Amino acid sequence: MQAKKRISEAVIRRLPRYLRYIGELKDNGIEKVSSSQLGEKMGMTASQIRQDFSYFGGFGQQGYGYSVQLLFDSMKQILLKDQGFTVIIIGAGNLGTALAKYNNFHDRGFDIIGIFDINPKLIGKTINSNEIMCIDKLEDFISEHQPDIAILSLPRSETKDIAVRVANSGVKGLFNFSPMDLKLPHDIPIENVHLSDSLMVLGYKIKNFQEEK
Amino acid sequence: MQAKKRISEAVIRRLPRYLRYIGELKDNGIEKVSSSQLGEKMGMTASQIRQDFSYFGGFGQQGYGYSVQLLFDSMKQILLKDQGFTVIIIGAGNLGTALAKYNNFHDRGFDIIGIFDINPKLIGKTINSNEIMCIDKLEDFISEHQPDIAILSLPRSETKDIAVRVANSGVKGLFNFSPMDLKLPHDIPIENVHLSDSLMVLGYKIKNFQEEK
Repeated sequence: MQAKKRISEAVIRRLPRYLRYIGELKDNGIEKVSSSQLGEKMGMTASQIRQDFSYFGGFGQQGYGYSVQLLFDSMKQILLKDQGFTVIIIGAGNLGTALAKYNNFHDRGFDIIGIFDINPKLIGKTINSNEIMCIDKLEDFISEHQPDIAILSLPRSETKDIAVRVANSGVKGLFNFSPMDLKLPHDIPIENVHLSDSLMVLGYKIKNFQEEK
Repeated sequence: MQAKKRISEAVIRRLPRYLRYIGELKDNGIEKVSSSQLGEKMGMTASQIRQDFSYFGGFGQQGYGYSVQLLFDSMKQILLKDQGFTVIIIGAGNLGTALAKYNNFHDRGFDIIGIFDINPKLIGKTINSNEIMCIDKLEDFISEHQPDIAILSLPRSETKDIAVRVANSGVKGLFNFSPMDLKLPHDIPIENVHLSDSLMVLGYKIKNFQEEK
């Protein structure tokens, strides 16, 4: 069941959410779910859900409901590689360390296999059985272990240079936490996570929510 | 210049991004910018930008370009309260600690004024001059200091209960890091940050990017 091309960004962004909700149903021992039941849980209409699923072959017959196990397995297969993804973290400061210890990444199929920093005080320390390595060893490590993803938890001023080094070495995608829209000449997927932007959106909503009252 | 009602979620989510880009122009000493120049930087069309700006009064005349200082001040005024927002963090684990030390929140107008945990080993420790307090003091603290926002960096199992306590005590918005779509009966803004979902989106793109080749 291979994903068709030209699936919209909005649909792609809903896929991990489907996996979460379907995983909950599975954990609760539920075997069948209809598109309207799933829609109710997720705040979507049944037809939105059927349309999203149609991009991936539909996942079985309507009217009888979907098999939760089939949905779960299919969603995992769509989102993950069979062996999961390998990840390196560059920047072992507060955020990088928290991300290295964040069990959810592992539980979702993302394995941290290396952590790098430039600070001699951090190099050699261990986070979850990963020793922090000197950034000088970055290219050798990537060449040897071929990680899929590099998480960049770096100061803004260093992010672009390191991103270029990482992309040149063959890492397949970047997960950037610097408050900038990282763009590279390299043709690889980049996901920018903007924590401050999200907090500002919340602030805007609070401010306007109060003003509307 | 008050925001009109019914501004779409997509426009609201672009506002912090405008602030970032306009802030960069300002830092680089640029005084005027046209909608097409700004659009080129941001990967948008000039007319998208003019349309977004029109919700907030337009920010001055076309053809002559926008005053960068006026845009910056206006965007800040739209997004922030005059005195900024006050924030408490609940859950001083790895992620909560990293967020407490994350300077970007402060730089964007969000001040951490309290940190709470249930773990006796953490209570009394200090993060950036904030002492970690026992969760038992949550309601008293909120009542006395009236924080705008609570950041929830808690185990999934505890998030809902704490969120209800916080909302009952009068906090105006929630910034939730648990891997769940937090919903409350309370009518307050909630922003769910799903780090694992974002990483899975990146994984999907890497997987399909490679398959397309």
